Amino acid sequence: MPTALIVLAAGQGSRLKSDMPKVLHEVAHAPLLHHALRAGESLSPERTVVVVGHEGDRVAAALDGWDAVIVPQDAQLGTGHAVAQARGALEGFEGDVIVLYGDTPFIRPETLEAMLAARGGGADVVVLGFEAADPGRYGRLVTDGDRLERIVEFKDATEAERAIRLCNSGVMACDAGLMFDLLDQIGNDNAAGEYYLTDLPGLARAARLSARVVTCTEAETLGVNTRADLAAAEAAFQAAKRAEMMDEGVTLTAPETVFFAHDTYVGRDVVIEPHVVFGPEVTIESGALIRAFSHLEGCHVSEACVIGPYARLRPGAELDRGVRVGNFVEVKAAQVHEGAKINHLSYVGDAEVGARANIGAGTITCNYDGVFKHRTVIGADAFIGSNTSLVAPVRVGDGAMTGSGSVVTTDVPDGDLALARAKQVNKDGLATRLMSKLRAAKARKTN
Amino acid sequence: MPTALIVLAAGQGSRLKSDMPKVLHEVAHAPLLHHALRAGESLSPERTVVVVGHEGDRVAAALDGWDAVIVPQDAQLGTGHAVAQARGALEGFEGDVIVLYGDTPFIRPETLEAMLAARGGGADVVVLGFEAADPGRYGRLVTDGDRLERIVEFKDATEAERAIRLCNSGVMACDAGLMFDLLDQIGNDNAAGEYYLTDLPGLARAARLSARVVTCTEAETLGVNTRADLAAAEAAFQAAKRAEMMDEGVTLTAPETVFFAHDTYVGRDVVIEPHVVFGPEVTIESGALIRAFSHLEGCHVSEACVIGPYARLRPGAELDRGVRVGNFVEVKAAQVHEGAKINHLSYVGDAEVGARANIGAGTITCNYDGVFKHRTVIGADAFIGSNTSLVAPVRVGDGAMTGSGSVVTTDVPDGDLALARAKQVNKDGLATRLMSKLRAAKARKTN
Amino acid sequence: MPTALIVLAAGQGSRLKSDMPKVLHEVAHAPLLHHALRAGESLSPERTVVVVGHEGDRVAAALDGWDAVIVPQDAQLGTGHAVAQARGALEGFEGDVIVLYGDTPFIRPETLEAMLAARGGGADVVVLGFEAADPGRYGRLVTDGDRLERIVEFKDATEAERAIRLCNSGVMACDAGLMFDLLDQIGNDNAAGEYYLTDLPGLARAARLSARVVTCTEAETLGVNTRADLAAAEAAFQAAKRAEMMDEGVTLTAPETVFFAHDTYVGRDVVIEPHVVFGPEVTIESGALIRAFSHLEGCHVSEACVIGPYARLRPGAELDRGVRVGNFVEVKAAQVHEGAKINHLSYVGDAEVGARANIGAGTITCNYDGVFKHRTVIGADAFIGSNTSLVAPVRVGDGAMTGSGSVVTTDVPDGDLALARAKQVNKDGLATRLMSKLRAAKARKTN
Repeated sequence: MPTALIVLAAGQGSRLKSDMPKVLHEVAHAPLLHHALRAGESLSPERTVVVVGHEGDRVAAALDGWDAVIVPQDAQLGTGHAVAQARGALEGFEGDVIVLYGDTPFIRPETLEAMLAARGGGADVVVLGFEAADPGRYGRLVTDGDRLERIVEFKDATEAERAIRLCNSGVMACDAGLMFDLLDQIGNDNAAGEYYLTDLPGLARAARLSARVVTCTEAETLGVNTRADLAAAEAAFQAAKRAEMMDEGVTLTAPETVFFAHDTYVGRDVVIEPHVVFGPEVTIESGALIRAFSHLEGCHVSEACVIGPYARLRPGAELDRGVRVGNFVEVKAAQVHEGAKINHLSYVGDAEVGARANIGAGTITCNYDGVFKHRTVIGADAFIGSNTSLVAPVRVGDGAMTGSGSVVTTDVPDGDLALARAKQVNKDGLATRLMSKLRAAKARKTN
Repeated sequence: MPTALIVLAAGQGSRLKSDMPKVLHEVAHAPLLHHALRAGESLSPERTVVVVGHEGDRVAAALDGWDAVIVPQDAQLGTGHAVAQARGALEGFEGDVIVLYGDTPFIRPETLEAMLAARGGGADVVVLGFEAADPGRYGRLVTDGDRLERIVEFKDATEAERAIRLCNSGVMACDAGLMFDLLDQIGNDNAAGEYYLTDLPGLARAARLSARVVTCTEAETLGVNTRADLAAAEAAFQAAKRAEMMDEGVTLTAPETVFFAHDTYVGRDVVIEPHVVFGPEVTIESGALIRAFSHLEGCHVSEACVIGPYARLRPGAELDRGVRVGNFVEVKAAQVHEGAKINHLSYVGDAEVGARANIGAGTITCNYDGVFKHRTVIGADAFIGSNTSLVAPVRVGDGAMTGSGSVVTTDVPDGDLALARAKQVNKDGLATRLMSKLRAAKARKTN
Repeated sequence: MPTALIVLAAGQGSRLKSDMPKVLHEVAHAPLLHHALRAGESLSPERTVVVVGHEGDRVAAALDGWDAVIVPQDAQLGTGHAVAQARGALEGFEGDVIVLYGDTPFIRPETLEAMLAARGGGADVVVLGFEAADPGRYGRLVTDGDRLERIVEFKDATEAERAIRLCNSGVMACDAGLMFDLLDQIGNDNAAGEYYLTDLPGLARAARLSARVVTCTEAETLGVNTRADLAAAEAAFQAAKRAEMMDEGVTLTAPETVFFAHDTYVGRDVVIEPHVVFGPEVTIESGALIRAFSHLEGCHVSEACVIGPYARLRPGAELDRGVRVGNFVEVKAAQVHEGAKINHLSYVGDAEVGARANIGAGTITCNYDGVFKHRTVIGADAFIGSNTSLVAPVRVGDGAMTGSGSVVTTDVPDGDLALARAKQVNKDGLATRLMSKLRAAKARKTN
C-alpha cells in the first residue's frame, strides 16, 4: 500500500521564547523536523507533505534538498485544520497517510511500521498511544479491549477518564480519502474555536468504522515545548547513541562527556577520551584514538590516526592512515596523507600534506588574501620548520624543508631548503640597559 | 522597621582541611560569604555586621567594597558569643536584626522577608526551620502549634524530640535590643563551655515572649563543611542557574557541562554548546553562539557574535555585533568592532580592532615590554596577514594590510601595505643533503 | 604464611568486540590487569603467576617490568584448567594461593587480607562472595551458617538455590598443594566440556575439608565484559578518586568533569576547575590552581603554580613554585624555574626556562630537526619576545631579550638583546590597490 506522510511543522513554540520556529531547534546537530522526517522516510513514502506556519519561509529553507511538498497553514486553527491543508498536495494519492509532528523527533521506524501493519490488519484509523508515567494533561485514549472508542482531551475528561494512563501521542494513520472525509466533519465548537485532529477516531467510530491503538514507549513520543525539553531530547539522543557506540566496540572513557551528531560514524576499537564533541558528517575508522578536548566536524579520520588532545578538525579534513594531529591544531579542507604529523599550534587549511611530512609547531597556511582562498601543497617527506608561514598558492616539494620562522612565498623544489630569515644580531648589553630604563620609568611613575 | 544583619563568618572549617577561611571558599566564582551577604542585602539593611575570627584579616579583605562593619571574635566561644560581638557595632540601632551564616549561601530573600513579616506580625523571636529528609544530628525545633517552644540540640534531645523532623537552620530574627538582652542571659554551662544562640528562643519563651518558626526548603539551608559540601553547593547553584537560563530562552545543548558564574547574564536565543565555562562578569546578548570549549570572563559579547570553539575571552574583551572569535584565540582588554574576525591561533590584548578587520591566523599583539603594557590599534577593514607580530604601541590604519610573517614596529598609514620580511632563498638540494647527514648520524649513534 | 597470586588473564572478551585482549583495556590509564595485580601486590606475594591465552604476547608485553611469571593457557578449557597451568610456576612454593581475575580491577587489599585471615583461622578453602542487588545469572554460594557447602552455577541451580542472593566472585584462597590436588579431581562432564574452578569448594567439602565465605561489596567484584562495563568501571574509579581527593582537602569545582589517572597525586588546597583531564604520573603540590580545560600527564606542578585554562603539560614538564602556564601552551620535557611565565600560545619542549623568565605569546622552541631533538636553555630573568622561534640547540642568557618575531639560531649572551628581523617597509597605498584588484577579480568571477 502506498504511504504518504503529513508532518505538522507550523507551531511557533512560544514557550521556547525564541525567534526561530520551533521545529528548527536542533538535537544532535539536526533540526527537530529532520529527525521526524527521517523516521518517516524509512517507510519510503510516495509523498511527504510538510505543513508550515510560523516563519514558514525559514522552515521551508531548512527543507532544501528534501523531497517534500511544503504547504502553508496561514491561520493557526488547530491540528485538524493543519492536516486539512495537505489535501491539495495529496490530490490523486491513494493509500495510507501517517500524520507526524515536526517537534517530536524520536518516533522509531518500527513503530510506524506497526501502525501501518495495524492498518493492513483492517483498522480504519490507527492512533499511536503510550502509557505515561505521569499522564498529567495529556489527552487520554478511551478504549474497549483493543478498540479505540475516542480520544478525550484532558480538560474535557471525566474523573474516570482522567484515571486512564494510555495517552495520545497525536500520531495517526488512516486511509487518505477517509481522513479528508472525516476532517470535513470536524467542528470547532470549543473554547479555542479550533479544529482538533483528535476528534477523528470518534467520528470514525460514529461512522461504524474501526479504530485501533498501537503503543510505543513514552520516550518515543517526547515532544519539545521548552528549552528544558530540548536539552532533555538532546540528552536522550546522546544516551542512546553512546550506548549504541559502546555496543559496537567503541571505548568511551567517559561517555557522559562525549557528544555525537545524528550521523557520526565510529569504527570498532576506536578510543574516545573524555570531553570530545562531534559536529555533523564525521567518520572515524577502526583503531583511531581521539584524545580529550577534540572537536571534529565534516571530517574523515582513518585507522591508526591519533587526534588531539585539543585538535580541531573542520569540514574537508581528510586524514589518511596513521596521521597525527596534535594540540591546538586546526585542519580544514585538507587532505593529509599517510603518516603525516601536525603536532602543535598550527593552522592547515585548503591544503594537501604529503605522506610522512612533518609540520612544525606554529605553522600557518596563509590561505586567504582577503577575497580569495588559495591552496598550499606540501610534498611527501617534507619538513616544515616551526613558525613557517606558507603563503598560498605555494608548493613545498617532496623531501623539501623550510627554515624555522620562514615566510615561504614561492614554490620550493623537491629536496631544496627554503630560508627567508633575517640575520641574527646580538646587541651587546642592550637588554640590560633597556630593562633598567623601563624599570626606572616605572619607578618614576609609581612615585 | 529598619533592619540590620549580623553575619557569622568566624569559623575555620577544619573539615575542609584548608589554609583558607571557610567563608572564602567559592561557589560560582564568589566566596560563600558574598552569597550570604547578597541574600541579606535584598532587605536593604541599615547596618551589616560581619563577625570574623579565623584568619579574620583575609575575610575582612574579601569584604573590601562591601558596606559592612567587621568585628572580631577573638575566642571561639559559640554562636551566642559570636553574635554578642556585634553589640558595639549596632550601638544606637533600633529595629530588627537577622542573624545569617557566612557558610550558608542559598537562603533566599523571600525567606528573609517572610521572617521579617512574622516579626511584624508580633513574634518576638523568629527562627528559620526546615523539614529535613534525614534530620540526623541537626538541632530540633520543639513547637506547639505555630509557637516555637525551644530549640534542642541533638545530643540533648529525648527520643521523642529526636523524632521531630523540623530542624533548626540557625537563622534568626529578633528586635535588636531584645536580642542583646537575651544574649546576656545565655550561659555556657555545657560540655563545650560555649554560649549557644539556640538558647535564645527558650529564654524568650521563659520571659513570656513569643517565638515563631518560619520554614524554608532544606536546599536553602545547605551549609558547607567539607569539600564535598562545597561541590554539592556548586552543583545546586549550577542546576538552578541552568534551569533559569533555559526558562528564559537560552539553548544549552548539554546543560550539565556548562558552568556559570553567579552574575552571568545571557540573552534570549543564545546557543551555548557543550563544555563552556564562565568566569565572573560576562554578558552575552541575544542571538550569539557560544561554541564548545569556550572560556569567558569579564567580557561582553554582542548579538550575532560567534565565539569558539576554544575561544578564550578575558576581562575587558568587548565584542560588537557580529564579531567572530575562533579557535585557540585569546582576547583581553580589547574593543573589537562590528564584524571583525579573529578566527585562529591569535593573541589580541590591549587592543582596538576596527570594524570588518580580518586578523590572520597566528597574529600576536606584542603588548608587553617586560614592564609596561602598550596598545595596538587596528583600523576598520584592515587585513592583518598570518603570523604578524604587532609590536605595540602601534597603529595599523584603516584598510591597511600587513604581509604574512611581518614584525610591525611602526605605524602603517591607512591603505598602505606593511612588509617586514626577509627574501626567500631556496638552497638547491640542501634539504636532501641535510637529512642524509642527520640520518647517517643517527645510524652511527644507534650502532 | 607465604602467599602466591594466580591471576587469570587469558580471556578474549568477545563481547568487547575488540582486537585487543580484554585485560589490556584500560581504566584510569592503566590496564585492567594492572589494577588486579596492584590489589594482589599489597599482600607482598612471594610469587605472582599470570595465566595468559588470547593474544598472550601482547598481555605479556604489558607486564614488562612487573615481577610476574607468565604462563600460557593454550586451550580455553575453563577456569579450573587455567589455574592448573600455574602448577609448574609454583613448583616448590608452600603457602597460600589467591586466585584473582585480570578483568576484575577493584578488589581491595583489605578484602584479600580478610580472605587470608580466614585461611589462617582454619578454613581450607576460602571463597569471596557478595550480596548482589540483582543476582541474575551469577553463580550462587550455598552455605550452612558460615560454612560454604558448594558453589552452584546459575544454570544448574534449583529454584531454591536461585533465590540465594550470596553470589560467587570467583576469587578464591587455598593452600597451594591442596589446590592443585583438588584441581586434579575436577572433571569436565558438562555441556561446555570445561573444567570449572567453582567445583573446588564442593570437592573440598566432600573430602571433609572446610570451606568458608568472606564477603565484600558488589562494587569490588565488578568485572568487565562489555565496553559499557568498562565505562562503568571507569566511572566507579573516578567517583571514588574524586571523593578521596575532596576528603583530603582538594577543591573540585565540578568533580564529575575531572578525570584522574590511577596514580594522580594532588596536594591540599589545590583548586581544580571544571573539565580537567589527568594522564598518568602527575603530582600537584599544595595550593596550585589548575584551571578549566587543562590536560596534564607525566608532570610535576609545584605550589602556587597557575596552570591553564587550556594548558597542556606533557611528560617531563617540571614546574617550580609559582610558575604560570597559560592558554594554548604545550610544555614537554622542560624544567621551568620559579616564577617563570609561559602565558599564551607557545610550545616549550626539551627546554630549561630560568626563574622569572617571561616567554612571549607565540614562542616556539624548534627542538626537532627531523631526526634529533635538541635542547633550548633560557636564562633567569630572560625576556623572550612574542613569536620568537628558538632554534635548538640554543641558549638565551640570563637577563637577555629577543625581539618579537626573531628566529634565534645562535646563543644570546647574558644581558644582550637578540634581533633577527627584516626592516619594515610601508608600501604607499598598496593595500588599497591590491584589495581593489582582488575585488574586481571577484566581481568578474561572479558575473
